[in-house]
Amino acid sequence: MTRLFNDPNDFPEEARLGLVAAHRDKLMAVPGGVVRSTRSQPDSVAVVVGGGSGHYPTFAGLVGQGLAHGAVMGNLFCSPSAQQVYSVAKAANNGGGVLLSFGNYAGDVLHFGEARERLIADGIPCEIVLVTDDVASAPLAEIDKRRGIAGDLTVFKAAAAAAEKGLSLEEVVQVAKEANRCTRSFGVAFEGCMLPGAADSLFHVPEGRMAIGLGIHGEPGISETDIPSADGLAEILVARLLEEVPDGIRLQGARVAPILNGLGTIKYEELFVIYRKVDELLQEAGLIIVEPDVGELVTSLDMAGVSLTLFWLDKNMESLWVAAADAPGYRKGSVTPAQALDPAEVEVVTQDEIPEASDASRKLACGVVEALEVLANTVNENCEMLGQIDAVAGDGDHGIGMQRGSRAALEAAKEALDGGAGAETVLQWAGQRWSDEAGGTSGAIWRVILKAMGESLGNEKPLSGQRLAAGVVNARQQVMAFGKAELGDKTLVDVLVPFADALSWEAEKGQAAVVCWESAARIASEAAEATRQLIPRVGRARPLAEKSVGTPDAGSVSLALIIQTLIPVLKKCQAS
Amino acid sequence: MTRLFNDPNDFPEEARLGLVAAHRDKLMAVPGGVVRSTRSQPDSVAVVVGGGSGHYPTFAGLVGQGLAHGAVMGNLFCSPSAQQVYSVAKAANNGGGVLLSFGNYAGDVLHFGEARERLIADGIPCEIVLVTDDVASAPLAEIDKRRGIAGDLTVFKAAAAAAEKGLSLEEVVQVAKEANRCTRSFGVAFEGCMLPGAADSLFHVPEGRMAIGLGIHGEPGISETDIPSADGLAEILVARLLEEVPDGIRLQGARVAPILNGLGTIKYEELFVIYRKVDELLQEAGLIIVEPDVGELVTSLDMAGVSLTLFWLDKNMESLWVAAADAPGYRKGSVTPAQALDPAEVEVVTQDEIPEASDASRKLACGVVEALEVLANTVNENCEMLGQIDAVAGDGDHGIGMQRGSRAALEAAKEALDGGAGAETVLQWAGQRWSDEAGGTSGAIWRVILKAMGESLGNEKPLSGQRLAAGVVNARQQVMAFGKAELGDKTLVDVLVPFADALSWEAEKGQAAVVCWESAARIASEAAEATRQLIPRVGRARPLAEKSVGTPDAGSVSLALIIQTLIPVLKKCQAS
Repeated sequence: MTRLFNDPNDFPEEARLGLVAAHRDKLMAVPGGVVRSTRSQPDSVAVVVGGGSGHYPTFAGLVGQGLAHGAVMGNLFCSPSAQQVYSVAKAANNGGGVLLSFGNYAGDVLHFGEARERLIADGIPCEIVLVTDDVASAPLAEIDKRRGIAGDLTVFKAAAAAAEKGLSLEEVVQVAKEANRCTRSFGVAFEGCMLPGAADSLFHVPEGRMAIGLGIHGEPGISETDIPSADGLAEILVARLLEEVPDGIRLQGARVAPILNGLGTIKYEELFVIYRKVDELLQEAGLIIVEPDVGELVTSLDMAGVSLTLFWLDKNMESLWVAAADAPGYRKGSVTPAQALDPAEVEVVTQDEIPEASDASRKLACGVVEALEVLANTVNENCEMLGQIDAVAGDGDHGIGMQRGSRAALEAAKEALDGGAGAETVLQWAGQRWSDEAGGTSGAIWRVILKAMGESLGNEKPLSGQRLAAGVVNARQQVMAFGKAELGDKTLVDVLVPFADALSWEAEKGQAAVVCWESAARIASEAAEATRQLIPRVGRARPLAEKSVGTPDAGSVSLALIIQTLIPVLKKCQAS
Repeated sequence: MTRLFNDPNDFPEEARLGLVAAHRDKLMAVPGGVVRSTRSQPDSVAVVVGGGSGHYPTFAGLVGQGLAHGAVMGNLFCSPSAQQVYSVAKAANNGGGVLLSFGNYAGDVLHFGEARERLIADGIPCEIVLVTDDVASAPLAEIDKRRGIAGDLTVFKAAAAAAEKGLSLEEVVQVAKEANRCTRSFGVAFEGCMLPGAADSLFHVPEGRMAIGLGIHGEPGISETDIPSADGLAEILVARLLEEVPDGIRLQGARVAPILNGLGTIKYEELFVIYRKVDELLQEAGLIIVEPDVGELVTSLDMAGVSLTLFWLDKNMESLWVAAADAPGYRKGSVTPAQALDPAEVEVVTQDEIPEASDASRKLACGVVEALEVLANTVNENCEMLGQIDAVAGDGDHGIGMQRGSRAALEAAKEALDGGAGAETVLQWAGQRWSDEAGGTSGAIWRVILKAMGESLGNEKPLSGQRLAAGVVNARQQVMAFGKAELGDKTLVDVLVPFADALSWEAEKGQAAVVCWESAARIASEAAEATRQLIPRVGRARPLAEKSVGTPDAGSVSLALIIQTLIPVLKKCQAS
């Protein structure tokens, strides 16, 4: 369990600052993550990696000479926001374009993708290579759907070594894709980690049992068995990976770099006992072992688990694999020490200017800040309940994610208001900060909601029922386009759609904003309750479907609650 | 908990082999541990470190260029035997003498000390420097009694960097002593580790509480408190260490290398959150921080604990601290890669020749092997019970240690017998192997017992009651001289003394061996039972004294049991 923290909300940020304090010779903090504090080759490709925090040394511990140029650091197990990715990429850019590489998770794909578009719009060439090494996460025929786990290391290492050699972005992308093609991992788990401040572990495996193929965030595995002996586990891991040798490789005499990775509490001596047998089995299969790694490389806080990765090497890949690297969490060979970088040379992305706003909109913006305050309080008071609901089908972090996001949104809204912003700007800043701080899918969705509301309210006009309804309708459209969820998928869309419909129906009747809202709020509560009977369709929750029937959707519940508690604010707004 | 192993008895050896398999470029296995697989400076001092296994990367992960030349690897949390130390030191020797350095624990002091004498007898200059950094283990006035914990790293690092520079043994000893004088550590714990195959953790700290000053093997701490915040813990650790700045150092502007060490399951992100505050507090105190380390450096399998070490640096120490090093578990800077070493160049200590023996003694040796077989079976059948008794006042490993030792002793005895050995040689080999394999104090004591018995039985004469009694009396004397325990200290001496007395009394009457033994065995059983009422005097068990009253001493129980079960073997011996 994670025992040592201050405010759990501050944990990832404090960990980031501590990491940088411990490694000032290698790392520099920039908004959204870290970059090298040493000078890179001018005009070389910058390899920017990232994802949720909690996997140290992945991702931030892999930044340094011969490895990544920057790491974007989302909250614990949450994808970073597009703004964070953009910020780190701008800071890491050496003038040779940017490769964004990360494990294949929906939130990361969304946010890195959006950041890529912004970078290209700025004239910075940018490409994405996903890591998809986890053989347990999808069959070979659907290899592109696989998740990325400890294979992150081989892909990042190969790409970064290629970048260090001065290869072009196109060539580095080819190397990264080839490294990913030649990397396969397979993992097992015994117990989930405990997030700081959480009441229970992220997941449990029954005592004496082992979950096979379980993901590093507790994504469901493919089977369960009694815990085998160390040699038995080595046999399970090696056998599965030898079933799936990448195309074009002849087993006999093939060269391979094995990585035996501990997830957190399977310790070094255990790993070495297992590795002893892995080494033996690989040699028996006729393989030649090249610079193996045994240790904690992609962790999940204090999760009990092990994975084995095989990186199949041709001559080129081998030269990239054995190249020297010097990052806080991964070192190999002897690098030629690079010069320290002057922090002033690093491009820091700052918040945008505040556009002009009318007095009416600035008054409305005051109401928006009040509404965000009520929203944050509501989430805060219901944080535990939301977490419990989410734990049935998800990973139990909905409450804490919403709490972190809504607090941060309120802070940003106040800053914007103090700077003279109108309603649209206040909502836009709030949404952006929510997503930056909370990360994950719900962070991204709430950014879309607040931004869409802002677009309809604008920075000029006062509040009206029609503009309010238009905002919610706009939010509904953008959320559905962004998240690809449909009505009945057991997501917040199940509340947003009927609420938007009811609100516009009332608004068309010409009712005042508060009257429309109050009436539509009842519909929203009923809709949230109705999600009890639905079966979740998407993502990791799928195999837990039956378990969650009878429990409402956490995202729907929080949205309905928020809608309900905003009625008094609207009344006050209307009255003034 | 440690979940992955094969036979728990094989765990340390299999971990050693796996470690070497994963690091063939750096390590080579030799009897008793590992040495560098790269060539060292000819005629330079060899720094040989060691202790019990289970603390990776300490000790074997600290062998490599710029760090130790060899590591002696005892069993889990058990000191290695003198033979193991001797063997590793012979293999690591570069012709410039040997520095043996290790944490201050009774078993290690005994065995490294004995090995030093053997090395000196071989003409190899050898010195010992103990690490005594744990401020919680004794007051400043008794600094020499302190245990060694994470400060191992700074002492080894400084000494090894000095050796690498070509300094003489005398100079390297001075450096190591000075590094130890300038190193202070303070630790806390939340939960003990679980040894492979054990039924429970080595110790527990109540839920939500933190034990202050608890040792890395569960040695009792100095107090207990509620778990503080991460910042609160940083304050506790820093405050205690700043209370005790080594003589001659002015706080303001002093240079210091902090090491924030995780014991196993306090993970990286937590460590960084704590380090953020440590860094801040040290800077506030006016200190200048030099190359800090945050990570897992001296672990205890999956123990939950943290320690902070401060290494106070003058110019010389700083140059040694920042010098490049490249070991499997610790790297710094960029070393100039050394040439690989040809294994044939490494001196391997092999077992001694078997001396001549008479037919009578070879026949007696057959009986000795049978006796050792019965002994091993007895221990095996009672292993769990012995562990449970030991767990009340000790660390619960008595059963498993005796099991491992007696099995190994039997194997060695058979080998000697097959080689034509007499009774003395068979007993000598058995004792040596017992100590090598089981390690710890009980391993050392049983080596003394078997060796003393052998000396009295000789390699010439057949069995007699008097020679048997003389052997036991000899064992009693040597054990008491070696272990410094007195009658009433709640150790195996409480059984050995009355047993030896009764046996010689019977033997003086001219009785046959089996008659003497049978009669004295009753006395031994009563004596073992009587240890229930004693209060243990020595070592780590002291603060647990009251807890253990009412429980017999595990070492006494196992000895009495063994005496009892040997009666039929003696009968058989006598009859034939």
